[in-house]
This record gives sequence, C-alpha cells and structure tokens, in this order.
Amino acid sequence: MGKKEKTAIEPTRAEDYPEWYQQVVKASDLAERSPVRGCMVIKPWGYALWENVSSVLDNMFKETGVKNAYFPLFIPLNFLEKEAEHVEGFAKECAVVTHHRLEQSGEGGLVPAGKLTEPLIVRPTSETIIGDSFARWITSYRDLPVLINQWANVVRWEMRTRIFLRTSEFLWQEGHTAHADKEEAIERTHMMLAVYRKFAEEYLAMPVITGRKSPSERFPGAVDTTCIEAMMQDRKALQAGTSHFLGQNFAKASEIKFQSAEENEEYAWTTSWGVSTRLIGGLIMRHGDDDGIVLPPKIASAHVVLLPIFRKPDDRQKVMTFTKSLAKELSALTYHQQRIRVEIDDREIGGARGWEWIKKGIPIRVEIGPRDIKEDSVFVGRRDKGHRDKTSIKRDVFIKEITSILDNIQKNLYDRALAFRKDNTVVIDGKDDFYNFYTPKNPEKPEIHGGFSMSHWCGSEDCETKIKEDLMVTIRCIPFETDSTGEQGKCICCGNKSTGRVIFSKAY
Amino acid sequence: MGKKEKTAIEPTRAEDYPEWYQQVVKASDLAERSPVRGCMVIKPWGYALWENVSSVLDNMFKETGVKNAYFPLFIPLNFLEKEAEHVEGFAKECAVVTHHRLEQSGEGGLVPAGKLTEPLIVRPTSETIIGDSFARWITSYRDLPVLINQWANVVRWEMRTRIFLRTSEFLWQEGHTAHADKEEAIERTHMMLAVYRKFAEEYLAMPVITGRKSPSERFPGAVDTTCIEAMMQDRKALQAGTSHFLGQNFAKASEIKFQSAEENEEYAWTTSWGVSTRLIGGLIMRHGDDDGIVLPPKIASAHVVLLPIFRKPDDRQKVMTFTKSLAKELSALTYHQQRIRVEIDDREIGGARGWEWIKKGIPIRVEIGPRDIKEDSVFVGRRDKGHRDKTSIKRDVFIKEITSILDNIQKNLYDRALAFRKDNTVVIDGKDDFYNFYTPKNPEKPEIHGGFSMSHWCGSEDCETKIKEDLMVTIRCIPFETDSTGEQGKCICCGNKSTGRVIFSKAY
Repeated sequence: MGKKEKTAIEPTRAEDYPEWYQQVVKASDLAERSPVRGCMVIKPWGYALWENVSSVLDNMFKETGVKNAYFPLFIPLNFLEKEAEHVEGFAKECAVVTHHRLEQSGEGGLVPAGKLTEPLIVRPTSETIIGDSFARWITSYRDLPVLINQWANVVRWEMRTRIFLRTSEFLWQEGHTAHADKEEAIERTHMMLAVYRKFAEEYLAMPVITGRKSPSERFPGAVDTTCIEAMMQDRKALQAGTSHFLGQNFAKASEIKFQSAEENEEYAWTTSWGVSTRLIGGLIMRHGDDDGIVLPPKIASAHVVLLPIFRKPDDRQKVMTFTKSLAKELSALTYHQQRIRVEIDDREIGGARGWEWIKKGIPIRVEIGPRDIKEDSVFVGRRDKGHRDKTSIKRDVFIKEITSILDNIQKNLYDRALAFRKDNTVVIDGKDDFYNFYTPKNPEKPEIHGGFSMSHWCGSEDCETKIKEDLMVTIRCIPFETDSTGEQGKCICCGNKSTGRVIFSKAY
Repeated sequence: MGKKEKTAIEPTRAEDYPEWYQQVVKASDLAERSPVRGCMVIKPWGYALWENVSSVLDNMFKETGVKNAYFPLFIPLNFLEKEAEHVEGFAKECAVVTHHRLEQSGEGGLVPAGKLTEPLIVRPTSETIIGDSFARWITSYRDLPVLINQWANVVRWEMRTRIFLRTSEFLWQEGHTAHADKEEAIERTHMMLAVYRKFAEEYLAMPVITGRKSPSERFPGAVDTTCIEAMMQDRKALQAGTSHFLGQNFAKASEIKFQSAEENEEYAWTTSWGVSTRLIGGLIMRHGDDDGIVLPPKIASAHVVLLPIFRKPDDRQKVMTFTKSLAKELSALTYHQQRIRVEIDDREIGGARGWEWIKKGIPIRVEIGPRDIKEDSVFVGRRDKGHRDKTSIKRDVFIKEITSILDNIQKNLYDRALAFRKDNTVVIDGKDDFYNFYTPKNPEKPEIHGGFSMSHWCGSEDCETKIKEDLMVTIRCIPFETDSTGEQGKCICCGNKSTGRVIFSKAY
C-alpha cells in the first residue's frame, strides 16, 4: 500500500465520519459553536449559502401564490395547550420566558424580575400563533385560501446538538395555509412537497425520496406528514423537509371558521411546511469530501475565486490588472438568473490560500500568474474533481464556457449522489438479512452500516418500535414513488401481511 | 363652510393624529396587534414593504464591503453584564428565559420546568454576543477590519407600545464592525450614517437631518451616537436610524484584541449601526393622508394595481384579456433595478375595491372598463394626488411613461416632505419664545405643537433635563449640516455661553 495521500480534513470520512463532519464545518468557515448552549454562529460564508437557499425557495413559494408575513416570536402558554398532541410534542424542549426585566440582587449580581402573569414560549413552530391571526382574517369562503410563509428563527431545546443538523435555535421558513375544502389542502401539502423536491434535486444536487411518515413520526397535531429524505455519505438518511396536512385539528384549536358558499359555518383545512438551516448540514454531508465541502454552483456562496500569483514584486500590478478585468467580465455574466459571484483573493500567504478555498468548497478556482498572462490563459481547478484538478484554458474560452462548467459541476454532483444512493439501496425480504444489513461489520466503526432497505411492513407501531430498539433503524417514509403499493408481502419484523414496502434506514 | 369631504380614515390627521395613526395602520392592512403583549403581526402588505426596505439596504451595505452573518438569539446574563453602561441601559426591559421545558403541575396545567443554571436574555441588541465571536475571529491586524451585518428580531420589553414605532419585538438589521484604528472606526460610523441618509431620502422620500446625540441620549456603552432624524406630519421628530462609535468599550468588555503591525497587543475599535421596522411607522406618519398610507414607489409593496370593470357579465372575458396583457407588459418593465410589481384585483365588490387600494397606498391605480378598451386607453389615478385623481391615458403612452410617473410621485413625496420640514423649522433665541413655541395652542389637541427649533444649548445635562421636564422636548441632535458650530450664542435655557445650535423637538 502506498503512502496515504494528504487531505485537508483529518480524520477522513472513512476514518471517522462524525468527527470528519465537525472538522469540515470548522475548516470550511461555515459556522461555529457559540457560548450559548446548542446555538450556533453562522459565519459569512455559511450565511451567504443560506441567503441563496432562501432567495431561490422564496421565489418558488411566491410563484405558487404564497406571500410572506411575520408573527410574534413568543407564544402564550395557553395557545400551545390548545392542541393536545402539539403541546405534548413540544413541551419537553421549549425555552420559557418568565420575567421581563433584571434587577440587582442583594448579593450584587442581576437576577430576573418582573414575573409575567403567564409564561411565554419562544416559538418552536408557529401553528398556534398564526392560527390566532387566521381566525381573525378568515370569515368567509371568499377569504380563502390564505397562503402565508414566514422566514424566522425558532427554538427547540435539544439535548444533543450537532451544528446545522440539530441546534437549539435554527433558521427556517414555515408555510401556513388555510383552505375551504379538504382536497385543496391536501393538494397544497403535496404541491409544497414537490417544491422541496425540485429545490433539493435541482439546486442542492441532492436526490430525495418523497413519501409519507408513519403515524408515530408525524408532526405533533398533523393528520398526515409528508417528507423528502436524502441519503448522506455514511448511508444514513436525512429528513430534509416536511409538508403537513393538518386536517381541521388546528382550525378547531384556534377557531378558524368561515361561512361557506352554502352559508354553513365550517372549520378551515390547514397545512404547514418547512425547511431549515439543517439543509446546510445535509449539503455538507452529501457533497463534502476529505478536503472540505463541495458547494453546488446554483446555491454556492460564490462561484469562482481568482488567485493572482506574484512571483516577483514587479508582477503585482500587471497580474492584478489582468485579474480585475477578468473579474469584471465574469461578474457581468448571468448563471441561472443570478450574477456570477466572483471573489478575488490577493493575500500573499503561499499555498495555504488555495487550500482555504478548497476547504470552503468554491466550485471553481482560477490561478493567474505572469506566465499565464503571457499566454492569455488561466489555470482552472474544478472543486468536484478534487484538489489536484488544474487545467490551462485560454482566457476568452474560460469566459465563454464558465456557465457550462458550472452546470457540469452541478450535474456531476447530482449524478454522483444518485449513483451512491442507488448503490446503497437494497430490497430485503428476510429478517436475518435485514438485521445483518444494519449490523456494523466493524465494531470500531459503528457508523458504517447498510443504507436504505426497501422492506415490507405490516403497519403496526410495535414492529416499528422493535426495529428501532434493536437496530436504531426507523421507517423513513412510505414512499410515493414506488409501485409496490398493494404488492403482497410479509412484514420484515413480524411476518404478518403487509401492503407495500417502506424505506428503512438509520437517520440523523 | 362647505360640507366636510368624505375621507377613508376617521378621525383625520387634524382631528386626532395619534388615533389617525392607529386607524391608518389598520385600514392599510400593514400590520395588526397580536395577543402577545406589545408584539405585532406584520401582514403581507406590510411585510412586502419590509422586504423591499431590507433588500435595498442589504445591497447598499454589501457595496461597502459588509457581509451578513447570524448570531444566537439568546445572550447569557454574564455577557450583558460585561459592559456596565450597556447592561444598565437594557436591564429594565428584557425578556428573560429561565426554563427549558414545561411539565404538568399538580393542578393539571403546564408549568415551567428545567431551570437554567444561568438565565438567558432574548437579545435586545447583539454587541456582547457578537463581540464574543469577534474576540475569536480577530488575532492580528491582518484580520481587520471585520465588517458584519445581521438581519434579526430583537426584543425590548417596552411598557408603552405603538405598532411599528415601539414594539416589544421588532425586526431590524444591526451592523457590527471592528477596526485596527480609531479613525477608521469613526469613518465607518459616518459612512453607515451616510448610507442611512441616502436610503431615507432617496428611497423613503423622507428628508432627514444627520447629527450627533447629546451624551444623555447615547446608546448605552457608546462613545458617540450619530443619528438621522425625520419630521413627521404632527411636526414631531422620529429617530429613524443610528450609527454608534463604540470606542474600545466593547472591545475591552469582550476582549477583542489583536497584534498590531508593530507587534503590540491592542484592543480593536468597534462600531454598531441599525435601522428597524420603525422605519415603516415613519413612512406612514410622513406620507400618509386622510385616505390611508401613501407608499413611495421605490419601496412600495406593489407599484400599480389594475382594476378591471365589468358593466355586463359579457364584458368579463374581453376586459380580463386586456388587463392581463397590460399586466404582462408592465411586469416586464424595469424601475430602478426592480421589476414593476403589478397587482390585478378582479373582485366584483363595487366601490369598496378602489378604496381598499387607496387606503393601502399603492402609487398607481388603473381602471379598465369596456369603454376604455374601445379607445385603447386606461384611467390612471396617482395616489399622491388624492383619491379623486383620475386621467384617461392611451395604453401605449401609459406603458411608455409609467416609470417616469413613478419617479414623479417619488419626487413629489420628497419635495412635499422637505417643504413641510422647512415650514416647521424655526430659529429661536429667546426662552419665552421657545416655551411658547412648544405650548399647545389648543388644550384639546396637545399633540399639535411647534416643530423643530434650532436653538443654542450650553451643553449641560441640567438644561436638557429641565426642558424635557417642562415641555417634553428633547435635543434631537447636534446637527452636522449646520454652520452654526462655533457661532456665539446663549443657551436657550440658562443663558450661559453656547457653542452652537442644536435641534430641539418633541419626538416619538
């Protein structure tokens, strides 16, 4: 065996995937832990990514008729209590505001004072506070549908946190709609799931499976929870977005009633749907390699970095002139309705500079030295091809081809992810095979396990629980894209009759 | 006297300005009170306005090299305590999180549980939590300047709230920068104030005076607070944005140190600057009239509404075809780097429809009936010219001229506001005149008072306090745009020597 090749991230994915994740977040300069338990600081490079994600999604929502609004951060305790399953689901992990000022204690420090009559909950999600507005806004069928989205921070006091994937505070969007009839609400639930799917696949280059959650995994208070599930490089699943049909549960809790065309008083039918900064965790785990993150061009914080090289002090002016003129031309180009985002990094810090941009996952690196200028060419490195990639391209050819290079990177990331998922998705019908699939082969690396298993399930919560307890494997979804519905089969756990295959996997 | 003309808002501004404000917020559909004390719901029409405000500002910030990031919502109590004046300034009005879950009480309801070791404060502003990151990010002069902005919600537990102007939770941006030297930090403070001024004047059509706050009105912990002050239609001042030079106060509190080029360890120099949803309150009060709000075109939620008119059921198809084709052409036009935002309102609800759009302040209303179509023309109403305005314009002329009509509305609003401020700004040198100026002439309408007075001040806090107690008048700022600096004069209050005029006014 040859010498291990140098990588920018240690350990590598194969050596220790969870630790690789922590190191890659750090090295890519996306975010950092904060001194506040479970809360993160999203650094400029990470926030730019979130700005692109939210800008694209926002346009997609608006195209379906959704409008943005903003509702209070705080939810009165009695609002949360209105829907029994809902409060049950969130009571264990919510930040509670009990006082509205600080005062000097006898011992000198400040202590909470001005106790509130009723505690306020920092929103973990906004169904109940938005429902209160909907009840005021909606009186007639003519007021429906109401299609609202909110970009906001929410807080869920998680006991075990992991940056981007599970944090006490996170950023998200939450859509909330109300409809006059059930079918339209169900249609909206699926419409928004389709938006998420399109966004994940076409922008994040992350193939996803859409499906329905089993009853035990439903959003607290929902009638039906649909989701997109992606496979990470350790073959675990990541729930990347959810869209809920809430039936009339929240309408009844919040008294969202309207007069129908037939002049009957009816409860509205509502939906809610959301994606969060968790998507960034998914991006890292889906596309990152042993040198850092790899950003899909369509949502990359920047598309290309220009790295001027000065061999002699005299070179500086000439090289910078060439670099700036190239930056100007590139910035004027359009790539999928965006301007091409160009960075110039002229710090004279040697090889560390190039490595920094590799770790940060920028799609294209361009080196520009005096010799390249003489030949009117540039050295182009594609991030998806690894840190060694470097090709000399004529300047004008590069300008002409940059958008197709970016498209090619985007496609390459998607194809690679899809092939990986296919390679790690199996059909399993025998219980022993199933248990074997999810048993780590190497006890020192318990995180390396099977992948997605398409297996039959009888529908009972007992079987679901047993598999979860035995293997830490859960039903990710009852997939929509399968023709196994109605297929005869036997439950992978109890052997009883099943009506179709579901997707089992370990998950984040 | 003739009969009072019908207005959409009652009472009118002249009848009861504060109540007019509440009614106009409601009628314009911008926002509403929420069931959470002092918190508002920003409705889609109001949020679209905020989206435009933030999008323009965000670009302006980025052009100066600022990047966005995101920091935790919660601030540990001991962080707030690090800067003595700062904690003193915010301790009386902060939401305190003391528990992290809810549990069943003996009596059946839920009560806070899981007490935190240290209370967390919901951020009223983020100097201390961002300072903690800066201390980690900055080690050498090469790391400076750090130029960061955050778009976020903040909470200040105000006792007396008024929608948009003073709410317990509000949305804002807060910029935070760190520099290697004092002069550069001061320059940044002024640069961002200039951005605010440009934005207020060119986008909000709101002329402002820039200046420095007196020491008693400084941001808690700042060395110098600069501000933009606008005059509302009741001649009160509104502080519309502030930019603070923080010296080394927060750098010392948060240990933001760096090694200088000369290899000395030094504290950084920091700034912070912010504007908030308060700007929307300012917009309403600056441009609104007795029929509702009047939106400046450059940040309007939408630019033009098309109102198809169907005299007979047969008309509908023909009129809608004409309307949609006009909408399509208008939407393809560009107005100051934005697409023209077009709404179509085809509800058949009679005259109420037109009034709704007047109240919502849309810059241009276009009525399209069968007769107009025959003549290939449309009826155009400009919001800045009042609810009666309506002119027949040929369709193609309207398309050709819409951007200049919008520009003309924008300019008209600005000119009107500037003229109003000039008319209500006076130079006063005598104490009796000063007291008389601020004494309501009609005790039934105490809100009608003088305006801005340019008067001499000796610099003592005693005089400032006396005037505030006697008249509820404060020093809005020591203006930068004056040549009275160094002018000899006598303090309007005590008669002692002064070194220049300041702006006095009642204020929001």
